Amino acid sequence: MKPQRLGAMIVTNPADVTHLTGFVGEDGAVLVAAGGTCLVVSALYGEQARQDCGDVEVRVGATTQQIIVALAGRGVRRLGAQAAHMKADTWQRLSAALGSRKLVPADELVSRGRLVKDADELRAIRKAVRAAEKAFNVLLGRGKKAFVGRTEREVVAELDYQMCLAGAQEAAFPTIVAAGANASQPHYQAGQRKIRSGEPVLIDWGARVAGYCSDLTRVVFTDRIPAEIGRIYELVAAAQTAGIKAIKPGVLARTADRAARDVIAAGGYGEQFIHGVGHGLGREVHEAPIVAAASEQRLGKGMVVTVEPGIYLPGVGGVRIEDDVVVTAQGRRRLSSLPVDIKKMVLR
Amino acid sequence: MKPQRLGAMIVTNPADVTHLTGFVGEDGAVLVAAGGTCLVVSALYGEQARQDCGDVEVRVGATTQQIIVALAGRGVRRLGAQAAHMKADTWQRLSAALGSRKLVPADELVSRGRLVKDADELRAIRKAVRAAEKAFNVLLGRGKKAFVGRTEREVVAELDYQMCLAGAQEAAFPTIVAAGANASQPHYQAGQRKIRSGEPVLIDWGARVAGYCSDLTRVVFTDRIPAEIGRIYELVAAAQTAGIKAIKPGVLARTADRAARDVIAAGGYGEQFIHGVGHGLGREVHEAPIVAAASEQRLGKGMVVTVEPGIYLPGVGGVRIEDDVVVTAQGRRRLSSLPVDIKKMVLR
Repeated sequence: MKPQRLGAMIVTNPADVTHLTGFVGEDGAVLVAAGGTCLVVSALYGEQARQDCGDVEVRVGATTQQIIVALAGRGVRRLGAQAAHMKADTWQRLSAALGSRKLVPADELVSRGRLVKDADELRAIRKAVRAAEKAFNVLLGRGKKAFVGRTEREVVAELDYQMCLAGAQEAAFPTIVAAGANASQPHYQAGQRKIRSGEPVLIDWGARVAGYCSDLTRVVFTDRIPAEIGRIYELVAAAQTAGIKAIKPGVLARTADRAARDVIAAGGYGEQFIHGVGHGLGREVHEAPIVAAASEQRLGKGMVVTVEPGIYLPGVGGVRIEDDVVVTAQGRRRLSSLPVDIKKMVLR
Repeated sequence: MKPQRLGAMIVTNPADVTHLTGFVGEDGAVLVAAGGTCLVVSALYGEQARQDCGDVEVRVGATTQQIIVALAGRGVRRLGAQAAHMKADTWQRLSAALGSRKLVPADELVSRGRLVKDADELRAIRKAVRAAEKAFNVLLGRGKKAFVGRTEREVVAELDYQMCLAGAQEAAFPTIVAAGANASQPHYQAGQRKIRSGEPVLIDWGARVAGYCSDLTRVVFTDRIPAEIGRIYELVAAAQTAGIKAIKPGVLARTADRAARDVIAAGGYGEQFIHGVGHGLGREVHEAPIVAAASEQRLGKGMVVTVEPGIYLPGVGGVRIEDDVVVTAQGRRRLSSLPVDIKKMVLR
């Protein structure tokens, strides 16, 4: 906070609030200041906050009002806040209430502290990967009948249920199950259409365990591999291998994006790879570092990122293959262990 | 938009975006202006937006940039935006890009159009209520073994799964299953503790069907009814009846809050009823009108609200009973049909 001359900081990104205080509710605001840290929550969360937070002071009431009270007499002139995680009306109300004190955007200060994962955090992410894989393998073990004739939504519901039985608190994000041509939409929302035999099915799912996320994607095939989807599958798999190999401490994150993108571009599908190759993974399913062409972030030991190149063909379908990777002292280690080999993804 | 002298309006609340355009992705922004409406989405959602939106113009790219381009030559001086649904950094970036044009908070303009539900919307909400009830009844039909010996999380997972099998797209919000003393936290997050025989279990759950939500709460008892929980159950049930009876077109929403609150206060638990009695229900699980002591909103035919008084006793437990109600020409009709009678909530 010193280089930005901030006398205090208000933290409202839920993942940062949890990281600083242990509180896992939705609407907390943490005031970090020289005189001590306090957590402000509404009356609905008062009891939970006192249970979750141990020795952090908990104030119950309206955020703006409680922060003004807590700041009294501390001589703070400049106050940092998370502009990417505070609503514009809250920002305006707080600015007005602060009078001559200035509210300054300072989004990165706390999340920077979450970039590198410690041993406990890595253990939680590994468990989240295991829960997701276990659920996926339950479905795969039943063969194509776990997919064909069921709606995409039913498969989502069962995968989420199986993740919980495997120890997850919940799905880390809305599970994607996209059959046939639907897979051409990277953020497709599962629908009520029944999956037909012969259709590839793209599945993007993850578990949350002890507050930490996993995030995986596979494409399974029912009976057969359509020719063009098979071709782009091999290209995406090769791109993923190249992206993962490029990961090591000290390199810019965009190096991994470039490595994967070059493979897909060389195969003639550069225009159809419409997103970055990956993102950081931790308390949030998308967090720093961003692994994309424009990323200025440098990878370091203990960071966890996804590597998930994809090719999307509107009206035809799509392939994305995603694994979770931790940066090690020498290079990287894949945390997930599901096969990528297309032959192992064909269900009978 | 006229009374506020707005030449255009930017809509970013996802429920409003869906209402105006049909687009159901997460990151859309709608520009409403005299020269025509357009939807701005990122490249990830381009194909989906074109499928969802029919005749609305779709622009793919960065929100701020696309809005500036779309505004060119339209002579807009004042531009409304949703300050409660736009992040502060987006607001600041957009304000700067707009130059001499002014960005004005105008949150209610669109959501006001969603207050009164038409026949299609009521049909969807009714289906969402049915899906939630059907799932609950599947668990109840198995008696106490659907709860005792299982973790709260496992019960959440199964209830969510059963809602999907009953036709829901997904759970409308994170399902709450709170056993014993955990029920004293209104927004409790289900945990990994096993439910013990003899514990009451508070369940707050809802389904989403065709984009619309239901929201219900019941307390079930395993084998026995602890004395104090039984007493507050009867009080909450009476408060709910009073709250529902107070609902009719033309009255202030706070009338219903007052009616329920008076019953609980008369019973000696006024301080332990720490939230408003209800909220509007539609595309969002919490929307206008708010049914609370400070609400200035007036009820009208076709509005749908929850009625959910509760009493919370830290260290002991809690009771909340919640149903969904539509305001009719003469009064109100309960959309949900689960029993409230405590005897029907005891599982063997």
